[in-house]
Amino acid sequence: MKNIRRAVADLHAELVRYGLVVWTAGNVSGRVPGEDLFVIKPSGVSYDELTPENMVVCDLDGNLVEGEHAPSSDTAAHAYVYRNLPEVGGVVHTHSTYASAWAARGEAIPCVLTAMADEFGGEIPVGPFALIGDDSIGQGIVETLKGHRSKAVLMRNHGVFTIGKDAKAAVKAAVMCEDVARTVHVARQLGEPLPIAQDDIDRLYDRYQNVYGQRSPR
Amino acid sequence: MKNIRRAVADLHAELVRYGLVVWTAGNVSGRVPGEDLFVIKPSGVSYDELTPENMVVCDLDGNLVEGEHAPSSDTAAHAYVYRNLPEVGGVVHTHSTYASAWAARGEAIPCVLTAMADEFGGEIPVGPFALIGDDSIGQGIVETLKGHRSKAVLMRNHGVFTIGKDAKAAVKAAVMCEDVARTVHVARQLGEPLPIAQDDIDRLYDRYQNVYGQRSPR
Amino acid sequence: MKNIRRAVADLHAELVRYGLVVWTAGNVSGRVPGEDLFVIKPSGVSYDELTPENMVVCDLDGNLVEGEHAPSSDTAAHAYVYRNLPEVGGVVHTHSTYASAWAARGEAIPCVLTAMADEFGGEIPVGPFALIGDDSIGQGIVETLKGHRSKAVLMRNHGVFTIGKDAKAAVKAAVMCEDVARTVHVARQLGEPLPIAQDDIDRLYDRYQNVYGQRSPR
Amino acid sequence: MKNIRRAVADLHAELVRYGLVVWTAGNVSGRVPGEDLFVIKPSGVSYDELTPENMVVCDLDGNLVEGEHAPSSDTAAHAYVYRNLPEVGGVVHTHSTYASAWAARGEAIPCVLTAMADEFGGEIPVGPFALIGDDSIGQGIVETLKGHRSKAVLMRNHGVFTIGKDAKAAVKAAVMCEDVARTVHVARQLGEPLPIAQDDIDRLYDRYQNVYGQRSPR
Repeated sequence: MKNIRRAVADLHAELVRYGLVVWTAGNVSGRVPGEDLFVIKPSGVSYDELTPENMVVCDLDGNLVEGEHAPSSDTAAHAYVYRNLPEVGGVVHTHSTYASAWAARGEAIPCVLTAMADEFGGEIPVGPFALIGDDSIGQGIVETLKGHRSKAVLMRNHGVFTIGKDAKAAVKAAVMCEDVARTVHVARQLGEPLPIAQDDIDRLYDRYQNVYGQRSPR
Repeated sequence: MKNIRRAVADLHAELVRYGLVVWTAGNVSGRVPGEDLFVIKPSGVSYDELTPENMVVCDLDGNLVEGEHAPSSDTAAHAYVYRNLPEVGGVVHTHSTYASAWAARGEAIPCVLTAMADEFGGEIPVGPFALIGDDSIGQGIVETLKGHRSKAVLMRNHGVFTIGKDAKAAVKAAVMCEDVARTVHVARQLGEPLPIAQDDIDRLYDRYQNVYGQRSPR
Repeated sequence: MKNIRRAVADLHAELVRYGLVVWTAGNVSGRVPGEDLFVIKPSGVSYDELTPENMVVCDLDGNLVEGEHAPSSDTAAHAYVYRNLPEVGGVVHTHSTYASAWAARGEAIPCVLTAMADEFGGEIPVGPFALIGDDSIGQGIVETLKGHRSKAVLMRNHGVFTIGKDAKAAVKAAVMCEDVARTVHVARQLGEPLPIAQDDIDRLYDRYQNVYGQRSPR
Repeated sequence: MKNIRRAVADLHAELVRYGLVVWTAGNVSGRVPGEDLFVIKPSGVSYDELTPENMVVCDLDGNLVEGEHAPSSDTAAHAYVYRNLPEVGGVVHTHSTYASAWAARGEAIPCVLTAMADEFGGEIPVGPFALIGDDSIGQGIVETLKGHRSKAVLMRNHGVFTIGKDAKAAVKAAVMCEDVARTVHVARQLGEPLPIAQDDIDRLYDRYQNVYGQRSPR
């Protein structure tokens, strides 16, 4: 538990480093291995002040189990994902600029970069418009990701949710999502990016998920 | 008084951190609780050199009451706001890039992001063109904000003023204003963002101002 | 001489801080008070390594007078400005992104922001295309600035030169030039910025250069 | 060998500083003087953790010779370049945003800035679409660069490769490539940049490669 508290606390610094968040508007969570619990950012606490100790622990219904602060206001969405996708060990939510801009138009990001084929295996899809307060956001995330290889989903008029085998992998997906959202946006400002053949996307994705993974355990 | 001096001095670092200001072109002020006074940035002093001690104190007509430096050249606008909006405890002014770009076109920022509905409750409106030197800017701010939930106003061809219950809340509004100004700008570069229904904007604003506030005291 | 060496060395950090330069592509110089000399960045030395000691001193023909490194490859342009504009005490050259983009199109930046009226008193003009190696660049700067209040000139297909009463004022002009180049660019991406009446530009410029100056000695 | 290990490790910090890379997606290598070997980034190790000791050494077929980690997944491309271009002493690969956006459209960056004429001697060309896994990327780089003065090539739908006489020169080319890719992109967003005459490009390139080089040994 101490390790996962520390990992989740520290990973928020990556959101700051890559400019994915302002003020307190973004959060990381990580499933506690072997338990029906996850660690998540406390609500409204600034990134500078996050410590392993002030992280909060919730059960898979999003109820506070341990911690002095209220959990992130996005906790219900994280909980829904953990409850419905048992292979997921980490969830990240941000309003990163370029990804949120695609989300505001309700437009999927087309797969026109090899790095995008590697990481996402195709387009980054758009989920529904959903209000905070019940399971709508969580449902939108899970239903959208089920039909895609992508570990990121653009929630309409809102922002991004990413998943991963652990919190670090979900943070990596959030960082890569904003990076490709920005590059494809910039490419399209002056014309149409060239498509990548589906066959090539498949080969890149397969290699990155398997070969790259085996060679590089970190 | 010492606390409010320190808070105002320190909050300028947030304007720097989020890239809202260059050189000395932006300022924060905070009302002194229980007195007809406010603390504001000294004019022309760089952000690196701000300390609780070199902050200046003005009365609600903008006259210097305490301090070795001249007050910010925007002091008259801050003073007008404190004089006319007694519930306001903090005021921020910046020329942040994206917000100022909307201001240069005299165009309100449409509410197409849930984060914007949360924080601003609708569009961010445009105030009049007004010259520095008398109460024109202050009047423009107050008259424009009176008809809106928004705590930010884009002053035409100029920049942004934000208000809050204290200086920190006004700084948060300035940070969020630039963030949504940028995201909506980027969204519109490649098409029209999808609208959010007025009903949904109302529900998001209500929840964020009430429920979120109660759960998260910070 | 020691003070001016230190001031010029330190001011390069502002170019880095505001993102106006990459690698070694930008330079600051400052006139030595009371002598026909100026201090300038050594050629090809990275910004991290600049010290008062490795700055170089040149005469007003651009000849090396003191220093172990060769002077900046832009020294001839700086020297021409000092030789022909005796009131100038500082010169800065950068390839900052947005200003250089206007320069690449050969287009002046229109005065549609009050901050631009304050600092530049009108548009930022474009100078001629000129090759390095003789006095062409210096002549282009001086001839273009003579007809304008602006302390910045966009050299066609090249970058920006700014002048000031001392090196710090020239650095401020370079920082403000990029800031307004960026904001006006962003404004124009989605439509036409509203003009500011010439009368208002004149009043803003007059006030900033006189009233603001008197109140704030820094 | 120790020096080249340190140089290659340290130069990755420049990729981070100039925002050319996110997560682990970019790499620097340097040829070991006098041997058929090169030093390259280990695969999947974050930039914060790079040290001279964890760099890896490969032969010119890309086989691991020394090191505890697997070499970068781009090693085959680096090796092909060293094998086929004996004058090259350093290679850099990034997915920097603006250069990759040009690459996604398959469009060369036109030479409309004097800094681009200096460093690249003309346009930055586009190489073919090539899959990772064999010599396709390396061949694409070498064949494209053979017909150009440019030390940078935009690999279609992928990113940038740059070369240099040593690792530092290749890093400089990568930094300058992104800088001009961004400036020319921004220029073209609001119209067509003015061309530079071929004669002037030739003179600028010749001077920068020769005169500038002689005056400034760093």
